Amino acid sequence: MSLFLQTIPVSEAQQIASGLSGPMPEELVPLGESYTRVLARDIHADVDIPGFDRSVMDGYAVRSSDTTGAGEAIPAMLRLVGRVVMGGGTDLSVHRGECVYVPTGAPLPEGADAVAMVEYCDLLGDQVLVKKPMANGENMVRRGEDFASGELVLTEGRRLSIQDTGALAAVGKKDVPVRKKPLVGVISTGSELVPVDAVPTGGQVRDVNSYMCRSFLDSVGCESRLYGIVRDDRESLGNALRTAMTECDGVLISGGSSKDDRDMCADLIRENGEVLVHGIALAPGKPTIIGRLGRVPVLGLPGHPASALVVMTVIGRPLFRGLTGERESERLVERAILARNVPSMKGREDYIRVFVKDGCAHPLFGKSGLLNTLVRSNALIRVPAGSEGFEQGDEVEVFRW
Amino acid sequence: MSLFLQTIPVSEAQQIASGLSGPMPEELVPLGESYTRVLARDIHADVDIPGFDRSVMDGYAVRSSDTTGAGEAIPAMLRLVGRVVMGGGTDLSVHRGECVYVPTGAPLPEGADAVAMVEYCDLLGDQVLVKKPMANGENMVRRGEDFASGELVLTEGRRLSIQDTGALAAVGKKDVPVRKKPLVGVISTGSELVPVDAVPTGGQVRDVNSYMCRSFLDSVGCESRLYGIVRDDRESLGNALRTAMTECDGVLISGGSSKDDRDMCADLIRENGEVLVHGIALAPGKPTIIGRLGRVPVLGLPGHPASALVVMTVIGRPLFRGLTGERESERLVERAILARNVPSMKGREDYIRVFVKDGCAHPLFGKSGLLNTLVRSNALIRVPAGSEGFEQGDEVEVFRW
Repeated sequence: MSLFLQTIPVSEAQQIASGLSGPMPEELVPLGESYTRVLARDIHADVDIPGFDRSVMDGYAVRSSDTTGAGEAIPAMLRLVGRVVMGGGTDLSVHRGECVYVPTGAPLPEGADAVAMVEYCDLLGDQVLVKKPMANGENMVRRGEDFASGELVLTEGRRLSIQDTGALAAVGKKDVPVRKKPLVGVISTGSELVPVDAVPTGGQVRDVNSYMCRSFLDSVGCESRLYGIVRDDRESLGNALRTAMTECDGVLISGGSSKDDRDMCADLIRENGEVLVHGIALAPGKPTIIGRLGRVPVLGLPGHPASALVVMTVIGRPLFRGLTGERESERLVERAILARNVPSMKGREDYIRVFVKDGCAHPLFGKSGLLNTLVRSNALIRVPAGSEGFEQGDEVEVFRW
Repeated sequence: MSLFLQTIPVSEAQQIASGLSGPMPEELVPLGESYTRVLARDIHADVDIPGFDRSVMDGYAVRSSDTTGAGEAIPAMLRLVGRVVMGGGTDLSVHRGECVYVPTGAPLPEGADAVAMVEYCDLLGDQVLVKKPMANGENMVRRGEDFASGELVLTEGRRLSIQDTGALAAVGKKDVPVRKKPLVGVISTGSELVPVDAVPTGGQVRDVNSYMCRSFLDSVGCESRLYGIVRDDRESLGNALRTAMTECDGVLISGGSSKDDRDMCADLIRENGEVLVHGIALAPGKPTIIGRLGRVPVLGLPGHPASALVVMTVIGRPLFRGLTGERESERLVERAILARNVPSMKGREDYIRVFVKDGCAHPLFGKSGLLNTLVRSNALIRVPAGSEGFEQGDEVEVFRW
């Protein structure tokens, strides 16, 4: 009865999706525009960072051996022989029995191997009383301790975080080699669809998925081009597919919701390329299509917005990482306690929308077509294919969306 | 000795920061560009969604009472009186003993109150054998069940998610009322700083914080204008402050790292406006300044990149939410098991950089100035002011960054 009886497991579909395409070519972007871009090359330090032994406190640069045994009662008495000024180098040296004032961030004079914080010192004329013994290396960072010249700082495939852009500044990357953003064509099919500015009548609904696809693509680092609502007859859809595969690096089709429409969509991908997967043991999201149009990867989504978003999250993320070149990062495992039982059918992976609050995951059961539960949910929980569900009080893994 | 002895608790500083300014005025943006923007008004449904009783399966629209007691052995036998076509309305009706084929997403004919999935039916000529009893409402969504006309869909202050943009499409919002993005001026001070394309010599370091500030501002929905490296003399910094407060909606100053520089920065804010906080019981991040230049909020960060990022995360987020109008969302509580003891001083909130993997938080201890640990960390853990730290094996809350 159904063409989707030969479903494949989610993990297999994810593997096929992520291997569909190689990464985009690289381009240089100014550092100030590199945040969230995907690094195209390993980045090494061009110099020692810091380039000098650096104080991390306001205090006195000392030879730590001069402060052995020092305390409140018997402070070490050192002669202040100068002050280091921020920004310049220093010609000063600290000999036995001497010290030099250094502000936070300034270079230590030669001979000094520790910084005594001002809070632990008294200044009497040109004498500094140090009331605490200092360890070698205390309150300072050694030259090259953060990154030594030539050391690996960031690896290719990393999606640049806030602090990554800081590290790139530190190693002098005024322009950053990143992957070009893929352009992904979005086609919405379904004779029931009307544009967002129309008022639906009869059996019509507004085109929700074009916009969800665009937002999703933005979230995974892709540009998008909306081809609008394409009538689901063979000619219109075939033409749209051929245009998109010529103009874009990837294609997302939000399929017609009926079986006939989905079958036509698969046929047309086959005519213009190859269908690799048609049917995944995934709920919601069984009638998903993974294919290729020439060298352009294509993902066919179910028409229901909620199913479409689950498929984008579970299958689309690995698929488009193939294009963007982003390596999967160690993700934070987020856990929550289940507030209600979640039954599930064995043999398929179930993704349940939940609202997580104060460590508790509240399942939002609801019919698969509802936007309502989609908007109220802030995460998904996954029920593996081998499980018959979870019970109230179980600790479950939570996937943000 | 220190000017920061009068520190205030983190929660108090956060409250002051978040109350510093009202939200930006609103503007309309096209729906396709609204993702991650902050909604400026409540959004209500303009029509019933769906606008008709809608099938969520491919199957036969039936009167559920006709299927009472139906099973494999004794199926209900119904006469097929028509097929609903996608996209149009339907003039068909289902009378007692009748059924009508409906594809997924199509409207139910009058009289029908359930959909029997094709998988549970056999078609014999114009007779349909239904082998399962159907409940009233099964496999269908009623008119207005997702959102009734006039119902609240999204509330003001929400940062639009992927699915939110879908919901806006469903209710016909071709243009979306959002808050204008605030423009925040970024000033980097410190005589030790050189631009990113210079090779540092002597006691110089490259300007890291300008870029981290820019990336951070991007992440919280602000535009930024970099004023570059400003010499930390009174005249240069004063001029930069006055320019930024005229041109921008907020100001971030990455302070000189020495105490003298920080004091000068606070003095200049006081001369041109008001210092509300100077010193927070926060580590790292004690020498933070919160102030106002006219009506423009200003945040003074410590010079160390790691401290600066902690302050942006802990204090900057609530401060800039005041401008962007974003309401704090129910955040996912992320938990992890601590891999090592984390000692902490009572009386201040400690934020420790960690790397979370497989549910385990590995503290990255290191000197506060290092970018190295910053880049390797994927999260922060918080040790409350009243605590002396956590022990290995403790479950801790984790803040992504």
